[in-house]
Amino acid sequence: MPVDTIRAMLSPLHVTFIAGTSGPWRIDRINAVIGESLAAADALTVIEGNDPAADAGTAWMLRGFTSNTRYTTRLETASLTARQQGLGRPASTRAALIPIRKSEAWWTLAQDERREIFEAQSKHIEIGQEYLPGIARRLHHCRDLGGDFDFLTWFEFAPGDDSAFEMLLERLRQSPEWNYVEREVDIRLTRA
Amino acid sequence: MPVDTIRAMLSPLHVTFIAGTSGPWRIDRINAVIGESLAAADALTVIEGNDPAADAGTAWMLRGFTSNTRYTTRLETASLTARQQGLGRPASTRAALIPIRKSEAWWTLAQDERREIFEAQSKHIEIGQEYLPGIARRLHHCRDLGGDFDFLTWFEFAPGDDSAFEMLLERLRQSPEWNYVEREVDIRLTRA
Repeated sequence: MPVDTIRAMLSPLHVTFIAGTSGPWRIDRINAVIGESLAAADALTVIEGNDPAADAGTAWMLRGFTSNTRYTTRLETASLTARQQGLGRPASTRAALIPIRKSEAWWTLAQDERREIFEAQSKHIEIGQEYLPGIARRLHHCRDLGGDFDFLTWFEFAPGDDSAFEMLLERLRQSPEWNYVEREVDIRLTRA
Repeated sequence: MPVDTIRAMLSPLHVTFIAGTSGPWRIDRINAVIGESLAAADALTVIEGNDPAADAGTAWMLRGFTSNTRYTTRLETASLTARQQGLGRPASTRAALIPIRKSEAWWTLAQDERREIFEAQSKHIEIGQEYLPGIARRLHHCRDLGGDFDFLTWFEFAPGDDSAFEMLLERLRQSPEWNYVEREVDIRLTRA
């Protein structure tokens, strides 16, 4: 199991995504998929651990935290951890940051209802697993911090997986779970 | 359904518990149940919504947030919301604040394993429901904020329910779930 997976499981990691004029990831494009977009910016910096403040060059800043799994069963966890790899692989020069907000209808569902839509109907875990280990992923929660989004998902992959990544997103966006997504922004990046 | 239950479901409410020299709740006693205690203090203030700062009189401060349910099924939710009442009932002059930290062994369990221990083995929801509507309860999460605890549970009840409350705690503390509790402090209060 990758070290950052173990660390994410063992203690929440606070992560801040800062869009501005410079940073290790060049922002190639920002598309509003559902609802309002985010402001244009040239580059993104990902800060782990502390809570940095905005400066004059900051276009926007999104904060979230890794946490314990909320839907994944032991069998699914075993299968995922056997296949997945960590962030920061040298060949992973592409990245995507996808902030999402789900509707109040989603959040008022009970745990068993959310799990039913998330996996039995939408196969969210199963679909994601098909793209491992090529497309690495780290989920950050942010609904409990307030703000405009509920989740910030960060993906990293090699340029050869560009079309696989498009397919992954298309399949998830066609799933019943996406009926509960009321805002989604798709930010694509290349390692500078 | 009580208004504060609906509000808690619809959007996370940030809550800060401030122990100090004065406040609307008199602290009657602070007992360490498992692990280290908290410092003695005379009174407690509960602040909803914003993030107050400590002042010279502050003995300790604990922050958490209400959130969506993590284990409760639709059937259980329906049954709970039919019986439970909100905080702030005039007759509820007794309160308890019980901060808890669970072990790494708990947090590395998958969702289905935690649910199995929490309800199938320990009947956490079922036991709590037996004491409704007398003993009102609001759960605050704080593991994802860092700090020393994972949960802060706040209870309110009338003096006539004192012994029922002791029984509720005793039954939960004897359950298999409590094998995963590595710190628990029991703070008892009376409305000043």
